[in-house]
Amino acid sequence: MSTFSYLKQVEQWDIQEIIVEGYSDGNPFTDYQIRGSFKSEHQSVNVDGFYDGDGVYKVRFMPSFTEEYRFQVTGSFSDESYSGTFVVAPAKEGNHGPVRVANTYHFAYEDGAPYYPIGTTCYVWELQSDELIKKTLETLKNSAFNKIRFCVFPKHYDYNLREPRSYPYVGIPCDSSVLTKENFFKYIGKPEGNDWDYKRFNVEYFQHIENCIRELRNLSIEADLILFHPYDRWGFSLMDRECDTLYLKYVIARFGAYRNVWWSLANEYDLMPQKSINDWEYIAKVIYTADPYNHLRSIHNCMPFYDHSRPWITHCSIQRQDIYKTAEYVTEWRERYKKPIVLDEIAYEGNIQHGWGNISGKELVRRFWEATCRGGYAGHGETFMNPNDILWWSHGGELHGESSERFQFLYKILCETPGMGLRPIKASWDEVAATVEDKSSEANPVQNYYLYYYSFMRPSFREFYYDDESEFEAEVIDTWDMTIEKKGTFKGKFRIELPGKEYMAIRIRKVK
Amino acid sequence: MSTFSYLKQVEQWDIQEIIVEGYSDGNPFTDYQIRGSFKSEHQSVNVDGFYDGDGVYKVRFMPSFTEEYRFQVTGSFSDESYSGTFVVAPAKEGNHGPVRVANTYHFAYEDGAPYYPIGTTCYVWELQSDELIKKTLETLKNSAFNKIRFCVFPKHYDYNLREPRSYPYVGIPCDSSVLTKENFFKYIGKPEGNDWDYKRFNVEYFQHIENCIRELRNLSIEADLILFHPYDRWGFSLMDRECDTLYLKYVIARFGAYRNVWWSLANEYDLMPQKSINDWEYIAKVIYTADPYNHLRSIHNCMPFYDHSRPWITHCSIQRQDIYKTAEYVTEWRERYKKPIVLDEIAYEGNIQHGWGNISGKELVRRFWEATCRGGYAGHGETFMNPNDILWWSHGGELHGESSERFQFLYKILCETPGMGLRPIKASWDEVAATVEDKSSEANPVQNYYLYYYSFMRPSFREFYYDDESEFEAEVIDTWDMTIEKKGTFKGKFRIELPGKEYMAIRIRKVK
Repeated sequence: MSTFSYLKQVEQWDIQEIIVEGYSDGNPFTDYQIRGSFKSEHQSVNVDGFYDGDGVYKVRFMPSFTEEYRFQVTGSFSDESYSGTFVVAPAKEGNHGPVRVANTYHFAYEDGAPYYPIGTTCYVWELQSDELIKKTLETLKNSAFNKIRFCVFPKHYDYNLREPRSYPYVGIPCDSSVLTKENFFKYIGKPEGNDWDYKRFNVEYFQHIENCIRELRNLSIEADLILFHPYDRWGFSLMDRECDTLYLKYVIARFGAYRNVWWSLANEYDLMPQKSINDWEYIAKVIYTADPYNHLRSIHNCMPFYDHSRPWITHCSIQRQDIYKTAEYVTEWRERYKKPIVLDEIAYEGNIQHGWGNISGKELVRRFWEATCRGGYAGHGETFMNPNDILWWSHGGELHGESSERFQFLYKILCETPGMGLRPIKASWDEVAATVEDKSSEANPVQNYYLYYYSFMRPSFREFYYDDESEFEAEVIDTWDMTIEKKGTFKGKFRIELPGKEYMAIRIRKVK
Repeated sequence: MSTFSYLKQVEQWDIQEIIVEGYSDGNPFTDYQIRGSFKSEHQSVNVDGFYDGDGVYKVRFMPSFTEEYRFQVTGSFSDESYSGTFVVAPAKEGNHGPVRVANTYHFAYEDGAPYYPIGTTCYVWELQSDELIKKTLETLKNSAFNKIRFCVFPKHYDYNLREPRSYPYVGIPCDSSVLTKENFFKYIGKPEGNDWDYKRFNVEYFQHIENCIRELRNLSIEADLILFHPYDRWGFSLMDRECDTLYLKYVIARFGAYRNVWWSLANEYDLMPQKSINDWEYIAKVIYTADPYNHLRSIHNCMPFYDHSRPWITHCSIQRQDIYKTAEYVTEWRERYKKPIVLDEIAYEGNIQHGWGNISGKELVRRFWEATCRGGYAGHGETFMNPNDILWWSHGGELHGESSERFQFLYKILCETPGMGLRPIKASWDEVAATVEDKSSEANPVQNYYLYYYSFMRPSFREFYYDDESEFEAEVIDTWDMTIEKKGTFKGKFRIELPGKEYMAIRIRKVK
């Protein structure tokens, strides 16, 4: 039997979804297959569908072109097959498509609009109560954050001992009532006491995550999905290759059509000795084979980097390498990897006992500016002690720190950059200097745009000289107090007065 | 002819001086020699004397033992020779003798009292007006500083364009009225326009420096004398080997008997291409041959280190190697050189345009604590803009910053250390930890003393465990607000609450 349908019109880079009924006997996650093919004049894509429970199968597709598509859905899930057509309308305002790597070191949406990541980390915000999730989304909506890193699997760690709202598999979790702040460490990576069927997904769990991804998309926030991580007491980090593959394919079939999805293979891959480099390379292959949209892919370290030169890695997702210096290495890492540098973890603003979670807002904002002016991007997180143990870094909720509002200011400065992103340039040893990322300008002795950052240094003035002819407008930027002071127009050798405070920058733009 | 005298009694480590008349025709600095020999039961020393103008020659000696000494003064300076005896009395309170290297990484006075250097830099404070010199000494008297680095030769550099109070040689200086903040750089190392006789010292110049060294000695402050430096418009950095040798011998004969003298061969030796490594090794040899008291010797870098493993170098005098990290390398440098690590230049508190002179008091104090808790020592300097261009770093005067009073507090903490100095120990990655420098304790699993420093991290608590038996007293130290809070006595695993602020330390001392 075969059915032909005219599906509802969808927007470019939104999701076309085909929902059909099929067999529900046995284990539909493994016993049956469903596949969709989508063709238009400029695009031809084959994707796996997935079982969504209650005899329902779904096939999802993200169209890249505004034209008519034909589709076919086939597979062992049913004796029926489905085909039809639909029309793709132009993207509405605010929909720029998925984020891609642009000009080697930076990002742009598929429609060409620049994307400057201002990321935050809330590892399992989506596994908290409805109320807390709502609060997190409200906080995100009023923030500069346009990327959030979080885990598909629940998290077990200090400050993360509560049960998640549900579980990804059918089965019974270990008894969490025995856990304390003192003994939790012993349970990391210990699956004893759990009883899961790693081949039978709890569809409500994934439906819920999907809703969260959709909410983020509606706020124009990228979902940097962490697929594996070591902070596990249920055995999800210890599955065999067959179950890993099943999981990855399920996640890609469900989430892959969301334009705001990024794949982070791991948080701290090097703390998972159960997975070898061969395993990670295999996982990468499953992803880049199954994901027809080529979503961004990265793998995040604790100590040693993964080899970021691997071709499947689209950008370097980095945890700091040193307590004292981090963002300062962006210049070097750009040179080494020739990819965008995203410092996803450079210590969080907060006051918990762990050194990775107790720096000041000032220091975090300083790290953001260092990274930015060196042509990279930094990431935020927040870990303040509180009686309910609700820490933004894992649970979301509200922000209590001083850094986050400063990112809106930084973002504004980035948006005022001509071209796409910043490129570090050689400058005096006691300043960080950037110009625009524009190959054609590299040979020019005088650029149209300069941004100097003085970090914790407090010069009362600085002197500049580019040439005798050009005219420049200079502004003093207070990156902490978020002010921009126009200093006038200058020519030849000129001097800019500064207030002798920390965290100042100077922006110089050629006007003639 | 020969004269025998009973000289006045002197104190141990003070100066015995024999003043005699001699020939003043020709050039007494080169044409005549004067030499003294001093003998007691335990000491036998030969030293050069020096010409002090107006037909007067002087021979100086610093006795190390409280016994009777015989002396002889001979040489071509006169047909007369002199001999005699004198008695050395015990050192009075506050006189501990010269500073020596003790237990590899630290310092002690010759009488065994620990010496914890809290140094500052005022390059040419002694060449300023009487009024300013008086003010500097007053400031030093009320500070924690017990070492000051300064140059024997005058200094030419940004903020250092004025004439010194006088010149080391007889002659005529270049015209300084042409100098501006814009053009001064062109005159560095350019002796044109000067007319000096590098073989004829201006004795008033050296008499004056000597008075300053004596004033410092009376305040128990070590004079870290910089013998050569590149910031010169008079040619003093460009003399030939013969004149260098004459200068060094003159300086040693005059100043060497002062117990508080240290020899710093150079400030930024690597910015003096006119001197090769062979030249520096020659200079070192002149010094260690002519100085019978073996005063401390070092050589300071701008960028690359001198080879601090050279046997004549008593301690590493270091300028920072990185804008961001400096004191953090002390642990590594201790291992590498097995000598005391003294960070004589790690950026100054201030607000001038140069990155080496505009960090905050908080950052400078942080660097001191990092260095201290890693078993080394840091140095201070201050460079605040002011209408009269009087900057502590070069001119002395008054202090305007926030750091200096915090060094008194740090010094107190150091004085409360059992033994002599601190030794860094392996600790958690997010703290700097020290115990006492005591070889015999290294093998002990539990030390009697621990000092933990959290730098810019802001933990709200930390947990400790050493063993089940010992009892410890714990204190929370606020290194910035200069408070010490007793937290009680603890045993087994224990937790110390902290205020979640930057710059905190915890001191833990075993009581049972």
